[in-house]
Amino acid sequence: MLALRLADRVFLDPECPEPARAPGDALVRMRVAGVCDTDMQLARGYMGFRGILGHEFVGEVLDAGDASWIGRRVVADINAGCGLCDECRLRAGHHCARRSVLGIFGRDGAFAERLTIPERCLVAVPDPVSDEAAVFAEPLAAALHVLDACRGAEGMPAIVLGDGKLGLLTAMALHGAGVRVTLVGHHASKLSIAARLGIPVALEGDLPEATRVPLVVEATGSPGGIARSLSLTCPRGTVVLKTTVADSSSVDLSPIVIDELHVVGSRCGELRQAIEALEAGRVDPRPLIAARYPLRAAEEALAHAARKGTLKILLGGEQEERSKPRS
Amino acid sequence: MLALRLADRVFLDPECPEPARAPGDALVRMRVAGVCDTDMQLARGYMGFRGILGHEFVGEVLDAGDASWIGRRVVADINAGCGLCDECRLRAGHHCARRSVLGIFGRDGAFAERLTIPERCLVAVPDPVSDEAAVFAEPLAAALHVLDACRGAEGMPAIVLGDGKLGLLTAMALHGAGVRVTLVGHHASKLSIAARLGIPVALEGDLPEATRVPLVVEATGSPGGIARSLSLTCPRGTVVLKTTVADSSSVDLSPIVIDELHVVGSRCGELRQAIEALEAGRVDPRPLIAARYPLRAAEEALAHAARKGTLKILLGGEQEERSKPRS
Repeated sequence: MLALRLADRVFLDPECPEPARAPGDALVRMRVAGVCDTDMQLARGYMGFRGILGHEFVGEVLDAGDASWIGRRVVADINAGCGLCDECRLRAGHHCARRSVLGIFGRDGAFAERLTIPERCLVAVPDPVSDEAAVFAEPLAAALHVLDACRGAEGMPAIVLGDGKLGLLTAMALHGAGVRVTLVGHHASKLSIAARLGIPVALEGDLPEATRVPLVVEATGSPGGIARSLSLTCPRGTVVLKTTVADSSSVDLSPIVIDELHVVGSRCGELRQAIEALEAGRVDPRPLIAARYPLRAAEEALAHAARKGTLKILLGGEQEERSKPRS
Repeated sequence: MLALRLADRVFLDPECPEPARAPGDALVRMRVAGVCDTDMQLARGYMGFRGILGHEFVGEVLDAGDASWIGRRVVADINAGCGLCDECRLRAGHHCARRSVLGIFGRDGAFAERLTIPERCLVAVPDPVSDEAAVFAEPLAAALHVLDACRGAEGMPAIVLGDGKLGLLTAMALHGAGVRVTLVGHHASKLSIAARLGIPVALEGDLPEATRVPLVVEATGSPGGIARSLSLTCPRGTVVLKTTVADSSSVDLSPIVIDELHVVGSRCGELRQAIEALEAGRVDPRPLIAARYPLRAAEEALAHAARKGTLKILLGGEQEERSKPRS
C-alpha cells in the first residue's frame, strides 16, 4: 500500500507492507489525515521515530474483533497504553510507561492507505461531523485539555499566546467553552481568522504594558514564549505550556516563585470531548484548513506544511485528487 | 540605635535614627533575628534594596495603637499590603502590587534594636514557644506553604531536594504534616540532622536511577536543581519551586509538557500556621541553629552566614553577648 515513511529521510513508499491486525486491534482505512508540526520535528529526529508518520486522522473501520465497529467512521486516541498498569486502569493511559503513540513512538501512523489501532482507542464520529472537522479531533482534544489544567476557567479572562495552528485552535476551544479569551500574536492575517469567529484578538505590540490575566496558554512554539507568558500572568495565575521546545533554553524562572505561578504542562486530551465539541458546534476548526492533498502527493503536502506560517494541511480524501488550496 | 544597614555596602550603624511609629504601626523591640540567604542576595543588589536588613525575627511590642499588643512577644508577616486592594481584602496581601516587604522592599528590617511594623501583620507568640524557635516562624511558614501548592499531600511520597537550611526546614515541615518525605542532598552531615528527627534521607548519588515521586520540592538554591526536580517527578506530579534563581538559566522545560507536570512557585506562607506547628511540637527547628551573635557583632554574623554550608545564624538575644557556636 501507499504510505509516507520516515527512515533516514521522509519518503513516499508505494510498496509499504499492509498492516497486520493483531487481536484487539481494528484495521482502519484512512479517509483524511492532518499534518502537525510534530511530524516535522519527528522528521528532524525528535523521539528517534522510524516508521509511517501521521497521528491526526479520521478513518473507516474495515475489520475489528468487535464487529459492531466495522463500517463506522472513527478517530482514535493516539496513546495506546499497556492496559494493565494503574495509569491505564485508573486514567487514560496517556502516561503509561509502556505506551506506544500513533505515528510518534513505537507504532506506525496514519499517513497511509490503511492502519491498525487498538479498538479501545477508537472514538466513533457521529454523522453530522464531517471528515474535515473530525480530522481535527486530536489537536482539538489537546486544546480542550487546557481546561483540565485550570478548573473553573469559564468566564475567566485568558490569553492564548501564539497565532499559529495550535494557538488558533486553542483560542477557538476556550472561546467555545466560555473562557473570556484573547488571542495574541504577530500576524494580523491569522488573528483575523479568530476575529471573524468573534474571538477578541490583539497584535503583540498593541497589548497594553500592564496586561496581566489569570490564565495564559503558551502556544508560540518558541522558547521566548515562555518568558513572555510568565510576564502576562497575574500573581497566583496559571500558565499552560503547550509548546514542546526540544532544546534547552535560557529562561528566567524567578517570576514563577515571586508571583507564585502555576505552570502546567498540557499534552493530549480526550478525543471524546473534542468530538462532542464538534458535534455541538462549539468549535468549527475548518477555517484553519490551508490545503488538501491526495496521499500520493504527501511529500509535496509536507513541504507545504513546513513553509513558515502555513495553517492545517490535510492528506487524503475520497477522490485522491489534489483540491484547490483554500488559502 | 544600633542597626545593620545596607547602602553601598552592609555596615553596622551605631547612630541609626529611631524608627517613627506611624498610625497603625507597632513599635517592636527585636529579641532575636535570623539571617537568611536572601539577606546575602540583597547585599549583592537583589531588589535594589537600601535600608536596614532582616526579615526573620521575634520581638516584643513596645507601643501600638491597639494597647493590647503592648508587652506581647510577636512575629510578623513580612508582606505589608495596602490593605485596600482585592489582593489584600480577599487574601493575605502577599501579592499586593503596592506592598512593602520587611527588610526586603520599601521597609526597614529587623537587624536593629527596634523596628516598626503594621499591627495587622503581627502574630502573637504563645509562651511555650521559645525565642529560638519563634525566630524560625517566617521561613517555617514559607516551608509549610508547600502544602498549599499540593493539596492532599498527607501520606504522599515526596522528595525535598537540597539539604541547606531551606531544604532541611521544608523536610521538617512536611514530615511534621504527615507527608512521606525523603530529604535528598549532597552533605551527609546535614542529612544527619534530618535523619536524627526520623526523616528518611538519601545522598543524591545513592538515589535509585528510576526514582520518581508525585511531589518534589526544589530547595537547592541552584539552577541545576530545577532540571533535577523535573526528572524526579512522576507524570502529572507537582514540583514546588522554592529557590529564587536570580539569573536566567538554561533549563530544558520539555518534561513539563511531556509529563504534564505542575510546577508551582511558592514564596511566603501564613505565620500563624508556623506558630501553631511550633506550639504543637510538630516542628522543632532549633537543631538548625549554627551560632548566635549579639547585634553589635552583626557584620561578623553575616560573614559567618555567608560561609558555604552554614546553617542558621541568629542575631540578638537578651545578653547581647556572643554565645558559643553550636556547630
